[in-house]
Amino acid sequence: MKLVCFEKAGRRAGVVVADMILDVSSALHCAPVTVEDLFRRGLVPEVQNLADNAAEMDRSHFLPLVETRLHAPVQSPSKIVCLGLNYRGHALEQRKEPPERPLLFAKAPSALAGPYDDIVIRPGVENVDAEAELAVVIGREGTMIPAAEALSHVAGYMAFNDVCARAIQREDKQWFRGKSFDTFAPCGPWIVTANELGDPGALAIRQRLGAVVMQEGTTADMTFGVGAIISFVSSSMTLFPGDIISTGTPAGVGVFRDPPVFLKDGDVVTVEIERIGSIRNRVRAL
Amino acid sequence: MKLVCFEKAGRRAGVVVADMILDVSSALHCAPVTVEDLFRRGLVPEVQNLADNAAEMDRSHFLPLVETRLHAPVQSPSKIVCLGLNYRGHALEQRKEPPERPLLFAKAPSALAGPYDDIVIRPGVENVDAEAELAVVIGREGTMIPAAEALSHVAGYMAFNDVCARAIQREDKQWFRGKSFDTFAPCGPWIVTANELGDPGALAIRQRLGAVVMQEGTTADMTFGVGAIISFVSSSMTLFPGDIISTGTPAGVGVFRDPPVFLKDGDVVTVEIERIGSIRNRVRAL
Repeated sequence: MKLVCFEKAGRRAGVVVADMILDVSSALHCAPVTVEDLFRRGLVPEVQNLADNAAEMDRSHFLPLVETRLHAPVQSPSKIVCLGLNYRGHALEQRKEPPERPLLFAKAPSALAGPYDDIVIRPGVENVDAEAELAVVIGREGTMIPAAEALSHVAGYMAFNDVCARAIQREDKQWFRGKSFDTFAPCGPWIVTANELGDPGALAIRQRLGAVVMQEGTTADMTFGVGAIISFVSSSMTLFPGDIISTGTPAGVGVFRDPPVFLKDGDVVTVEIERIGSIRNRVRAL
Repeated sequence: MKLVCFEKAGRRAGVVVADMILDVSSALHCAPVTVEDLFRRGLVPEVQNLADNAAEMDRSHFLPLVETRLHAPVQSPSKIVCLGLNYRGHALEQRKEPPERPLLFAKAPSALAGPYDDIVIRPGVENVDAEAELAVVIGREGTMIPAAEALSHVAGYMAFNDVCARAIQREDKQWFRGKSFDTFAPCGPWIVTANELGDPGALAIRQRLGAVVMQEGTTADMTFGVGAIISFVSSSMTLFPGDIISTGTPAGVGVFRDPPVFLKDGDVVTVEIERIGSIRNRVRAL
């Protein structure tokens, strides 16, 4: 399934069925629910059942996908955990060794933005850069999760742009603020459920800035794969349904180019991941 | 008012009235609500009204404070933002200049613990240290909040222990993981509402480890006061009701002592703040 959060007098969960969105709350005859509500309340099997029988459902439960505004698939993660230097190529372009352990940092959930929303650069925020990433959305609570069981805690996967103000990142040394401006975490366009995606270990991943391909890689270049990452994160922090883990970025980011390339007003950045889809965000400098 | 989150077949909001807890959900005849629900739904004036008229209320709405388990006053902040190096004395003990701008980092909300819960140290986690802090809880959403209006966004204040695994903090350089282990953010014992506390700018703050006073300071030693901090944080990230901002720690932390002092199994750490109260957490090393 492809789970979306869409606008309909508020933000609610849907399933993409061909070129339509099935309104889950309407089809379940319940109060509006978000995608993370589905995970938290264990409603995914019921929603899968709806999706499997979509052809027989009343058309009143559907909206046309192209005419509907999509939001970040998850609206209220308890945390967004990101990985630094997790692709070998990205470590290499910084002349750094891959880390011995996953290197974690946080983005504020208030940075989340929809798959086609603007990335807003506030006045005085310099050297803003994009990072194409595969993000994992947690479906089931867990602490100290063994690597072998880790994938069973995944609800699904989405594309994620770890937007970052490099000047602030360098000044603070702590990456949190430069990575947490509002709109600096566009994601989506949907969560492809783990049962539909299967193995996330060798997906093509690409970032385009306008027509230029900036990053082109494969998740096979990760030092720590999805299972190892989940196990590691959960060895310090309990993971909750809806939590997002973004798994790092391949080589090619703007800041390490010569000369460096940063996002500017009017640019359009695309993050594409094989078998998931792409998010496309226009840059708006205030 | 003093707002608590207490255990009663789940976690719910209460108000401390003398030696009793007024069960807000029971008194409002509503489904169980948390403290952050009160902020998010604008119910604080109604709760203040209950508290003001507590003497006339049915005794069935009350529980004895000493017999009731308290949890972290806020259970689901969208983020916990912390400040590094914000007390002049703490910068000095590291031979560092106070930062020119507030230095922000994040703790995972999954680290929250109640005011009397154990601080749990997992095997292999080394050099765990405590930091006494004044934490602000946001009551009203805001972006780009002017400093002069910032205090109007505060719901209240609580004591906070920014527990930290120093070995991991140094190894990662990013402070997030070492500061985000489950139970590494004990807080409370309640939120003293802003109208009751008044000016947070000159409160005595103390950390005791067993009988030894480790930190003894005043919030007047902060480089950036509460208003300036809120304004600064909201200039990059929208603040939401329930969000926690912990405002930094005074001099005296264990890691900068000679020889260094770290938490060990069986220790009891207390964080006391004038006009707020104290939290007291036992250390349990697994």
